[in-house]
Amino acid sequence: MAGIVDLHLIGIGTGNPEHLTLAAIRAMNAADLILLPRKGEAKSDLIDLRRAICAEVLTGDTRVVEFDLPVRSTVPPYLDGVGEWHAAIAEVWSAQIDAYLPHGGVLALLVWGDPSLYDSTLRIAERLQRQGRALKVHVVPGITSIQVLTAAHGIALNTLAAPLTITTGRRLREEGWPQDAETLVVMLDGACAFAALPPEGLTIWWGAYLGMPQQCLIAGDLADVGAQIQRRRAELREEHGWIMDIYLLRRTV
Amino acid sequence: MAGIVDLHLIGIGTGNPEHLTLAAIRAMNAADLILLPRKGEAKSDLIDLRRAICAEVLTGDTRVVEFDLPVRSTVPPYLDGVGEWHAAIAEVWSAQIDAYLPHGGVLALLVWGDPSLYDSTLRIAERLQRQGRALKVHVVPGITSIQVLTAAHGIALNTLAAPLTITTGRRLREEGWPQDAETLVVMLDGACAFAALPPEGLTIWWGAYLGMPQQCLIAGDLADVGAQIQRRRAELREEHGWIMDIYLLRRTV
Ligand SMILES: C[S@@+](CC[C@H](N)C(=O)[O-])C[C@H]1O[C@@H](n2cnc3c(N)ncnc32)[C@H](O)[C@@H]1O
Ligand SMILES: C[S@@+](CC[C@H](N)C(=O)[O-])C[C@H]1O[C@@H](n2cnc3c(N)ncnc32)[C@H](O)[C@@H]1O
Repeated sequence: MAGIVDLHLIGIGTGNPEHLTLAAIRAMNAADLILLPRKGEAKSDLIDLRRAICAEVLTGDTRVVEFDLPVRSTVPPYLDGVGEWHAAIAEVWSAQIDAYLPHGGVLALLVWGDPSLYDSTLRIAERLQRQGRALKVHVVPGITSIQVLTAAHGIALNTLAAPLTITTGRRLREEGWPQDAETLVVMLDGACAFAALPPEGLTIWWGAYLGMPQQCLIAGDLADVGAQIQRRRAELREEHGWIMDIYLLRRTV
Repeated sequence: MAGIVDLHLIGIGTGNPEHLTLAAIRAMNAADLILLPRKGEAKSDLIDLRRAICAEVLTGDTRVVEFDLPVRSTVPPYLDGVGEWHAAIAEVWSAQIDAYLPHGGVLALLVWGDPSLYDSTLRIAERLQRQGRALKVHVVPGITSIQVLTAAHGIALNTLAAPLTITTGRRLREEGWPQDAETLVVMLDGACAFAALPPEGLTIWWGAYLGMPQQCLIAGDLADVGAQIQRRRAELREEHGWIMDIYLLRRTV
């Protein structure tokens, strides 16, 4: 029978290799195997970064193996597509574990940002556990894109002692501005959901490719800079072949 | 006239020195002066940790100076007390800058967790800028207590593609469970605000002293573990003389 696998989900930050923590570096070096997902040509910058991080910090005999991440079905309904996608990824992980850690050992996955935030790695690991795999999960926290956004703009996430909400572009588009919210962080937005909001009284701090050489920041009253962000986003996406962006909206009146 | 001061607000994580990022270590070493706040005897663990971090990572001739943090007035109204407190801290920083960097230079402050999250350092820096100080602010992101909480429990912050809200104990006490919220992270809670909620259908993941040797975790249905957390919190506070805790609540039905 297969041995126990200690699975370390290691947050690596969102683009700046200097956002690695000492704990992440230690956990990478303690692993027998690191699996790196290939996400296809358009996003090759992202695997290049992971390769560079491994080359930079690994000092021992950790083995690094790349695998092709299954492609997600984008046919609606959204949540079904996600479930199938997770199942497919779980299968690929399983095959890699059988091939490279047949007697168990320490496996590490490098998770973009922090493993707790809009990331499916924990859920896929639970899926494997439910399927009966002897998997012990450990999480190493990482710097999220939210922190890189606020740091780059030099702003606080919350106003004094006030709450904030983190949501997705889909939710903002479908449900509008959440009642009573003052500060909203929007992630996973493929299509500038802010453009559908009445812009009066809203300030936006937007960032793309945060932590990376191509980092781009725009901030201002939504009424003034909303259209500019939409234009710039389209240009950047065209230029680089992919884009990741995030923004903070604050109601100021 | 005083020269320009480059002020680096450096997130250092929330207790585990291994949560320092490479960027934080680099920024600390690039500073001419690091100011460490003393918060009084009860919380001496916290300055001890900062001292240990400095001793561990500084390799050059960065000067480390300790100062007594003014004490906050806890007389209501809360927000007035905070304003006065910030003004007092701004004055103390000013005096230290005049004393140690009269011709300008690079000043670093080690901020607990991440500087964007329920922290007043950015606001105090803005206060100094408004007073006419030539201060250029840079932020180095750090691991927040939220990420250490979710990592320690091995849980995700959000359910699949769903929003979450971060709030304070005061707000939860005064306003109750926010309408429509599924996931709530509660910080700055001096008095177990969860105890006033109808516990049915709520799960809690609680953590105190996260990242530190005395770390304590409790999780379960709020109805089952709520009272246990209140007891344990009181004991720990008694034992250590101070406590910092945070929790995530999720509505599961
Ligand atoms: C699948 S989520 C993963 C988030 C990640 N776990 C984190 O901690 O930031 C991807 C979303 O995060 C945001 N994001 C991640 N990295 C980013 C970056 N470098 N620049 C801008 N946004 C980023 C974007 O909103 C993107 O749609
Ligand atoms: C003034 S706020 C600062 C938060 C910090 N900037 C961060 O990024 O986590 C202090 C609150 O953060 C939470 N906190 C900070 N450090 C913690 C720790 N080590 N363990 C548990 N909670 C912590 C508690 O809710 C505490 O009341």
